[in-house]
Amino acid sequence: MERLALATDLYELTMMAGYYSKGLLARATFELHVRALPPHRSFLVAAGLEQAVEYLEQLRFTSEDIAYLRGLPQFEGVRASFFDEYLTQFRFSGTVWAVDEGTPVFPPAPLLRVTAPLPEAQVVETVLLAYVGFQTSVASRAVRMVNAAAGRPVVEFGSRRSHGVEAGLYAARAALIGGCRATSNVEAARRFGEPASGTMAHSWIMAHDDEDSAFRDFEEIFDGHAVLLLDTYDTLAATRRIVASGLKPSAVRLDSGDLDAESRAVRRILDAGGLSATRIFASGDLDEWRIADLVGNGAPVDAFGVGGALTTSSDAPLLGGVYKIVAMERGGPGGDVVPMMKRSPGKETLPGIKQVWRTFAGDSATGDVIGLADERGPSGAQPLLKCVMSEGRRVDAPKSVAQLRAGCSRYVEQLPPAVRRLRGADRYPVTLTPTLRATADALNKSPSEF
Amino acid sequence: MERLALATDLYELTMMAGYYSKGLLARATFELHVRALPPHRSFLVAAGLEQAVEYLEQLRFTSEDIAYLRGLPQFEGVRASFFDEYLTQFRFSGTVWAVDEGTPVFPPAPLLRVTAPLPEAQVVETVLLAYVGFQTSVASRAVRMVNAAAGRPVVEFGSRRSHGVEAGLYAARAALIGGCRATSNVEAARRFGEPASGTMAHSWIMAHDDEDSAFRDFEEIFDGHAVLLLDTYDTLAATRRIVASGLKPSAVRLDSGDLDAESRAVRRILDAGGLSATRIFASGDLDEWRIADLVGNGAPVDAFGVGGALTTSSDAPLLGGVYKIVAMERGGPGGDVVPMMKRSPGKETLPGIKQVWRTFAGDSATGDVIGLADERGPSGAQPLLKCVMSEGRRVDAPKSVAQLRAGCSRYVEQLPPAVRRLRGADRYPVTLTPTLRATADALNKSPSEF
Repeated sequence: MERLALATDLYELTMMAGYYSKGLLARATFELHVRALPPHRSFLVAAGLEQAVEYLEQLRFTSEDIAYLRGLPQFEGVRASFFDEYLTQFRFSGTVWAVDEGTPVFPPAPLLRVTAPLPEAQVVETVLLAYVGFQTSVASRAVRMVNAAAGRPVVEFGSRRSHGVEAGLYAARAALIGGCRATSNVEAARRFGEPASGTMAHSWIMAHDDEDSAFRDFEEIFDGHAVLLLDTYDTLAATRRIVASGLKPSAVRLDSGDLDAESRAVRRILDAGGLSATRIFASGDLDEWRIADLVGNGAPVDAFGVGGALTTSSDAPLLGGVYKIVAMERGGPGGDVVPMMKRSPGKETLPGIKQVWRTFAGDSATGDVIGLADERGPSGAQPLLKCVMSEGRRVDAPKSVAQLRAGCSRYVEQLPPAVRRLRGADRYPVTLTPTLRATADALNKSPSEF
Repeated sequence: MERLALATDLYELTMMAGYYSKGLLARATFELHVRALPPHRSFLVAAGLEQAVEYLEQLRFTSEDIAYLRGLPQFEGVRASFFDEYLTQFRFSGTVWAVDEGTPVFPPAPLLRVTAPLPEAQVVETVLLAYVGFQTSVASRAVRMVNAAAGRPVVEFGSRRSHGVEAGLYAARAALIGGCRATSNVEAARRFGEPASGTMAHSWIMAHDDEDSAFRDFEEIFDGHAVLLLDTYDTLAATRRIVASGLKPSAVRLDSGDLDAESRAVRRILDAGGLSATRIFASGDLDEWRIADLVGNGAPVDAFGVGGALTTSSDAPLLGGVYKIVAMERGGPGGDVVPMMKRSPGKETLPGIKQVWRTFAGDSATGDVIGLADERGPSGAQPLLKCVMSEGRRVDAPKSVAQLRAGCSRYVEQLPPAVRRLRGADRYPVTLTPTLRATADALNKSPSEF
């Protein structure tokens, strides 16, 4: 996607101008976290952090951007050097810590931490929240669907329900990180080095004079890759027709009706016709609960195709992600770093530059501890936030989506099974270190102005 | 955004290759419609059709796209001329009819109709559904929020909750069509010729030594445009501080807590302090119901800022939009056009090339009638589908978002007030012409193969 520097909230830009104008250039630390788990989620899976880093690396203001801002009434009182010098030369120069993509995360732990001069740390808020919040939503739901499928492949094909073309690509990415084995989105497959998967639409059948010739034509052209769609007219009649015609499709697809009953009937017809190698692919408004029911009831479905429920994270299409200042150098660049917190009712933040540690018993995660980054953390615990950008430069090369998926699978398996349950999951323990708790209490009792 | 020809479902491309390989180049008509209204929607508002037309105008396959497809295992059996000739020279050459953006629409009426050679009409499915479904979702919710605000301005600022950067831009566009008066997204404001709006974040306050100096600094730089945020520490104390300091902000913003009680208390303090011209802007997880409650209770809120509930259409983040073949030339290009329908259980489509007529009593819409496009339609009724592309070329220049918003407001006001109600709305009458009904019945009774 193009990197559009102005595709952000106006207030990020006015505040940036304000900080610049007032010489507020001290380094500040902002953290991105989610306030609470949405319903139906017992954990989140972090994703979209790579797109956040790409954005930070590439953020520039073009001369057209600058001319447009200069002409806005809000910027009338802003001095010329903000446009001619600051924005013209703008590069993100900060340091970023983030959890690995694919890591299960639990509110209110930070997923991402940015330390940079105040105007830089501020202006990136909107886009970081959008990229990380969106992909995290989708990856979190993907893991649930993949778990529900209990080893049967889940394929993402929700681009048509996505919130635009870019959303389709990144939804596919997040779904693949969360465990989907393929995507129908060809550009996503190309960009992320993953398999593209596809079947046929009802229109293919309807554009032929009869279903027989539609099936035959497809098999002939896409020999070995054909997945024949059964439900355009009558699912069982179509299945019998395939058997009678001697076709040997690699798979057939059910896209409507009672998937449990129909998959069993189709399986019987295929098996009786010598097509026991033909797999059954099911789709049609599937979500984790429907997948779990089909699997639990033993329906002979070999693979699932999921659409909009996944790519829009339809039951939780937005996370309450926030990006809040937690610390700043007092008195300007080089000053002591002091912790800060917002105290708006119901929207309080935890102060200070933080780290999150995951504790283990053997291979099983037992809880997360949120503390200040300069604390030592529980012994044997793993720190989740790692340095991904230093002074505006990426620390490591991006991982492939395949690597991220493998990591995600490993991290998710470390969670207690009761936390991973689809329904009635246990709450995973998240605690604060005494030092963080004391810092928050101290700030909470202090007057508005510290 | 870039136009990415491969950002589509693999099956669109395999079917295109299949149609080409089998010489299935007859003109087909596909229609895009929504199966049913989601909960909490008594009407939809069409949007995203301009992006659909832009996509159709610009769709091209680059040599890299073609090389990638050629290398996919699925395309092994496809002959070379598909890549070297067909894809290389590909241009969308079809004719498109669509409803005006901003028009209230009622399932199962088509919003868009494409007539083109089969491979062209097929391959555009995924992206048309994504653009139209997404913006229609957002515009539909925007109208509800704007209606709830009863004349008070509603400002869109949900980019941070959007499903990426592109989604933020087009959510803003749809929100503006639906009646929002401004957007916080600067790129959207620039691109769509609309006002950009913004306030300040809590970080602005927190980055200052005290709230007083934070307010004073902002007023000084953004004189006449400053909207001061009250709830960082203590809303009422902040309001008193503004009065005491002699600042005269154009507005103040409440972003948390009990907005009804706090807006009244803030209004009293402002009025008593001689700041009766200072307006109160409310935000914080607002939706149409919360806005309606505030307005209904007489809370002194002058304008509303809405975020993710709007830009993700959070209660209905996806529409069950479908794009289905409804007619095709029989026997190849130039043949008789025959109606077609899909009969999958619960997913049946209406056959034939259709038109939708809206009937009126005076200025008030009384119902929609769906019929075949070559019918005459009820006398005095307005046909909703209009030709927007002819043989691959746009018919009229795009309308501005301001024009579309004005049209939307006019069209929505034509709906019966009981249909527009937020809660317990009446069902708007949608009927089929006897001819369309008879066509559907005839096809339903015919054997699978016609």
